[in-house]
Amino acid sequence: MRLLALCGSLRAASINAALLRAAARLAPAHVAIAIHPPLADLPLFNPDLEADPPPPVARLHAAVAQADGLVIASPEYAHGVTGTIKNALDWLVGFEPFIHKPVAVLNASPRAHHADDALRETLRTMSAVIVEEACVAIPLLGAHLDEDGMVAAPAVAAAVARALAALEAACAPHASEGEGGGDPAFPLEP
Amino acid sequence: MRLLALCGSLRAASINAALLRAAARLAPAHVAIAIHPPLADLPLFNPDLEADPPPPVARLHAAVAQADGLVIASPEYAHGVTGTIKNALDWLVGFEPFIHKPVAVLNASPRAHHADDALRETLRTMSAVIVEEACVAIPLLGAHLDEDGMVAAPAVAAAVARALAALEAACAPHASEGEGGGDPAFPLEP
Repeated sequence: MRLLALCGSLRAASINAALLRAAARLAPAHVAIAIHPPLADLPLFNPDLEADPPPPVARLHAAVAQADGLVIASPEYAHGVTGTIKNALDWLVGFEPFIHKPVAVLNASPRAHHADDALRETLRTMSAVIVEEACVAIPLLGAHLDEDGMVAAPAVAAAVARALAALEAACAPHASEGEGGGDPAFPLEP
Repeated sequence: MRLLALCGSLRAASINAALLRAAARLAPAHVAIAIHPPLADLPLFNPDLEADPPPPVARLHAAVAQADGLVIASPEYAHGVTGTIKNALDWLVGFEPFIHKPVAVLNASPRAHHADDALRETLRTMSAVIVEEACVAIPLLGAHLDEDGMVAAPAVAAAVARALAALEAACAPHASEGEGGGDPAFPLEP
């Protein structure tokens, strides 16, 4: 099982990035979570470039195509999605392998709902499968936990485990489609 | 009167960009509309860089500070704002001169409302003044008009004139504040 994690914040001390790194460590051995290199490498979306995508876009496309499911964690900026996560999704709107991809949206600031609502509306419009049981709200804002602290916190670890189990269940029917077993290792950094 | 125009699409044949260029041509002589260079030059927002903004961000900040008001035209992508326009706004969230800036939001595809709603919610959250009478819906999608065609179309020209007059009225109380007359010419390309 190969999951691709996308983080909507570029801040070095991002809670969302720490949560995704913690999730990668908490995942069971048969679930590999690859954290996509910073989405900062993507140029801003330009439909004129879609026919011959710039290398960072081609890398995002390849990572999405190889993943059985996606895990997204992104903060809210000014009652909206971050430009960073929306820009990444804009590059995926016309990318056919994204369609029907199971997605978990982790929300580290449950009091914020505008960005979460908008992200889900966009993902639905893009024909992703939002796995509701895998979309957990984890009140990390103000909890002062870093990645190690999240891994060690029983409530966080349990919520992450619940999300990953639900996402895995949703991915399972698709995971080995057409590959006949013996999947190569997921080539991205875990 | 100096207005700054921001376009949320980078497509060369963008209807929104053409609308902003048409508005710059249709503006009365005493209203200069500067179209900001493509927002593609902006890096993706990173709060860690805010203290020492990269040059394209510094240029955006200077242009906003010098403008009496803003005109925004941006398409809807997958039922959301474009990453490009949101990224530009993300760089302005912490920029004090943006506060109380009068803004007109032009909507070239009135059937789309998700992006328009989200853009307004974010602008309100950023304490911009959304000038409702200046926010006009102009059904250009499918009208097959380029910039020249928009300038020549009486309905488009009238809607743009109405929007600019309303925005000018909202800007007027602020336009010459503390400058004592004799404004230097607006330094951006009109």
